[in-house]
Amino acid sequence: MKPIFLVLCLILLSASFALPSKKSKHKPCKQLVFYFHDIIYNGRNAANATSAIVAAREGFNRTVLSDQFRFGNIAAFDDPITLDNNLRSTPVGRAQGLYLYDGKNAFAAWLGFSFVFNNTDYQGTLNFIGADLMMYNTRDVSVVGGTGDFFMHRGIATIMTDAIEGTVYFRLRVNINFFEC
Amino acid sequence: MKPIFLVLCLILLSASFALPSKKSKHKPCKQLVFYFHDIIYNGRNAANATSAIVAAREGFNRTVLSDQFRFGNIAAFDDPITLDNNLRSTPVGRAQGLYLYDGKNAFAAWLGFSFVFNNTDYQGTLNFIGADLMMYNTRDVSVVGGTGDFFMHRGIATIMTDAIEGTVYFRLRVNINFFEC
Amino acid sequence: MKPIFLVLCLILLSASFALPSKKSKHKPCKQLVFYFHDIIYNGRNAANATSAIVAAREGFNRTVLSDQFRFGNIAAFDDPITLDNNLRSTPVGRAQGLYLYDGKNAFAAWLGFSFVFNNTDYQGTLNFIGADLMMYNTRDVSVVGGTGDFFMHRGIATIMTDAIEGTVYFRLRVNINFFEC
Repeated sequence: MKPIFLVLCLILLSASFALPSKKSKHKPCKQLVFYFHDIIYNGRNAANATSAIVAAREGFNRTVLSDQFRFGNIAAFDDPITLDNNLRSTPVGRAQGLYLYDGKNAFAAWLGFSFVFNNTDYQGTLNFIGADLMMYNTRDVSVVGGTGDFFMHRGIATIMTDAIEGTVYFRLRVNINFFEC
Repeated sequence: MKPIFLVLCLILLSASFALPSKKSKHKPCKQLVFYFHDIIYNGRNAANATSAIVAAREGFNRTVLSDQFRFGNIAAFDDPITLDNNLRSTPVGRAQGLYLYDGKNAFAAWLGFSFVFNNTDYQGTLNFIGADLMMYNTRDVSVVGGTGDFFMHRGIATIMTDAIEGTVYFRLRVNINFFEC
Repeated sequence: MKPIFLVLCLILLSASFALPSKKSKHKPCKQLVFYFHDIIYNGRNAANATSAIVAAREGFNRTVLSDQFRFGNIAAFDDPITLDNNLRSTPVGRAQGLYLYDGKNAFAAWLGFSFVFNNTDYQGTLNFIGADLMMYNTRDVSVVGGTGDFFMHRGIATIMTDAIEGTVYFRLRVNINFFEC
């Protein structure tokens, strides 16, 4: 009967090692890198714009970002996602949602958005929530859920500003580390 | 000693099978179906309306949804939840939060809302985040958390448009599959 | 060979007990208490205000909260977080994000915000989503993710209104119970 016990115990052992633990949480189960590109509507670029101001404090209009830290501006966006930093590359999906400038004394934004993929490599969506503290080179937001190929995924997205051109264009690099796949 | 080992191993085996694994994630631990009903304020239906436009791009007012894909409109809602598709059925709770039209070239919305239950069957809340891609018959958003009877729940909500009447009324059917209960 | 089997089984047994189960979910792995303070802009308190109305229904401006239950008002906030209930205490971080009044027939709000910590005790962020049903003394929202010291945390935040002064100031007490650390 000895071999049977050994086999049983080995099965149990391997099953246990495959299960989530606090330690394994720090080792990503999947890693992805994307870029997304935001061209904000300024009253003269309707054809190219991918985002628009939709809310502002009293006294500010919605074609010009408000004073200093833009506190209170909400922008809606539908930005192309690319695999490299080239705005002209074929998009692999859309980043859609909102950013809200919510820093009164420093640049900061609250992000609520989704990545929507529909290509040969990925089908499905990823849902993001978090604080984009623009004074830091890198900042982490939460991937709170996913659907399709990203069924029930969770993780951390590290955002870097890859380019800024005036007040109209910015490009973000997003390194996504999944810890629940 | 053989029987003791067998018993020990069987206990461990059953414990392991009860623990979460990638495979079991695809089998829901709970399933629920609800409908919710949205009547948007159009300037003339204040008594019946359950939602209202609260943000829009420059140049658009907040009693008429903006052009083509309504890009940039945010609606706040407080919609009744029912167990069947009848708007007159006794609500089991309220769906409260926002939708943001965020598709520039197609109908799409970003959803951030909660189901608030307060009845004999369910007490507590469910919190939803995700992309509602209206060009598809069904679309999946994330259930990112729950409270009360839905303590720490996570899952996927599959949304279907069950009815649309002009620009004023729509009804959504929501199939919720929980994978963490 | 008996001792080896015993050791193997004991290792497996202890590993299994360390793994998450439905029961352990109800016992927090970490508990924290904070206060945050909101002073809403009313057209005359620009220097002290920590929040501002940025969206409203048609016919309402953004320096006065709208009628009765404030349905449709979105406020952006950048509120100090303190360890006690004193607005003048040294902040340990900022609560940043939005609240949307979304109750048509009762006070209710949808919350989407982050706690941003940057002090000797805590570095990192916490991300919150949920329904703030103000008619209840306590209400639970979801902690849907965390970064830095709060890497991949999830839990429940119980919110209590600790003070209200007219329409300009309120203070919330937040008891956070983490069930995934």
